[in-house]
Amino acid sequence: MAKGKFITVEGCEGVGKSTQVRLLKEYCEAHGIKALFTREPGGTPISEKIRALILDPENADMTDMTELLLYCAARAQHTEKVIKPALEAGLNVFCDRYSDSTTAYQGFARGLDLNTVSMLCSASQVDVAVDLTIFMDVSPDDGFARKGGKANDRLENETLAFHREVYKGFQALAAQDPDRYLCFKATGTKYDTHGEIVQALIARGILK
Amino acid sequence: MAKGKFITVEGCEGVGKSTQVRLLKEYCEAHGIKALFTREPGGTPISEKIRALILDPENADMTDMTELLLYCAARAQHTEKVIKPALEAGLNVFCDRYSDSTTAYQGFARGLDLNTVSMLCSASQVDVAVDLTIFMDVSPDDGFARKGGKANDRLENETLAFHREVYKGFQALAAQDPDRYLCFKATGTKYDTHGEIVQALIARGILK
Repeated sequence: MAKGKFITVEGCEGVGKSTQVRLLKEYCEAHGIKALFTREPGGTPISEKIRALILDPENADMTDMTELLLYCAARAQHTEKVIKPALEAGLNVFCDRYSDSTTAYQGFARGLDLNTVSMLCSASQVDVAVDLTIFMDVSPDDGFARKGGKANDRLENETLAFHREVYKGFQALAAQDPDRYLCFKATGTKYDTHGEIVQALIARGILK
Repeated sequence: MAKGKFITVEGCEGVGKSTQVRLLKEYCEAHGIKALFTREPGGTPISEKIRALILDPENADMTDMTELLLYCAARAQHTEKVIKPALEAGLNVFCDRYSDSTTAYQGFARGLDLNTVSMLCSASQVDVAVDLTIFMDVSPDDGFARKGGKANDRLENETLAFHREVYKGFQALAAQDPDRYLCFKATGTKYDTHGEIVQALIARGILK
């Protein structure tokens, strides 16, 4: 049996990523296309426990490297126990965030050494490769604007500056890997964008 | 101020490692030598939580790579928050197990790719290097014999086979890095071995 394709969905927060994943899932269900939809961080009970550890406010003094290694540990479990078996069973797998989020957030925005991040991401993927990445190519400024946010206080501004670095990270990854990256500017309605994504996936033979 | 020296203590289980660490600690206290004694896995509240996650029987389906990444995450926290500040404050740090245990257990015994293990250990040490390793060079067969174990049932035999691989791992590391490794055969009493370790550390200028 042919192996399934592994498609990740990436982008900054507030840019409609999860909405597009949901619409894709509905499309697959409506067209009888079997596919696995999953998300990071999380995706297995152990990965969820690791995620809880990362997010627990009690662990506020966690170092950036510890955080990076924990994200990778969660991904290793998710990949070996969920993603890889599904791909080997011939299913296409759609994953909301994956290694590129780690590179953009922990590497570009937190400033950890990019070679180290790349090496750790590679270890966390065991021997699974991403076939295609759907990138919601919307700047966090536009994302904030859509959400009606103003980003006026110090903390909000810091957050926006951080998310701008995340966005630069995704753009750098897209530029490095143009064959894998499908970029969507998402200037129309969510249904317009959904239509564009579906057409692109049909053209790649992933949807029908 | 001169930076402190970082000394790790390594070896298989049941070979008197922890006893030697305790005797060294007592020696330092008796001679007014300030030093930090710590251990892995653990050493910080976050590292202890990660350790609990690794050891929780509920998480029995944890993959080897996830386990490796979690050990490294715990080490990164321990290194950056405890070991590195102590070294920078001029203290010698003695650590019961460190990266070489990860290499011996997860690399040699579990069979994970040694380059990947080495890369991950290096990331987990942030930028701290081990100056000296006290290796209790006792085979697990002798360790089991000392404990009066017989290793007759299937599980015990598997365990012994596993620990033999661990031992081979430590021996390989010692051979690769003879300047860093101080090997102790521990054929006499625990006080004999303690005396040998103290003399070796005095010769290296670490104890007085």
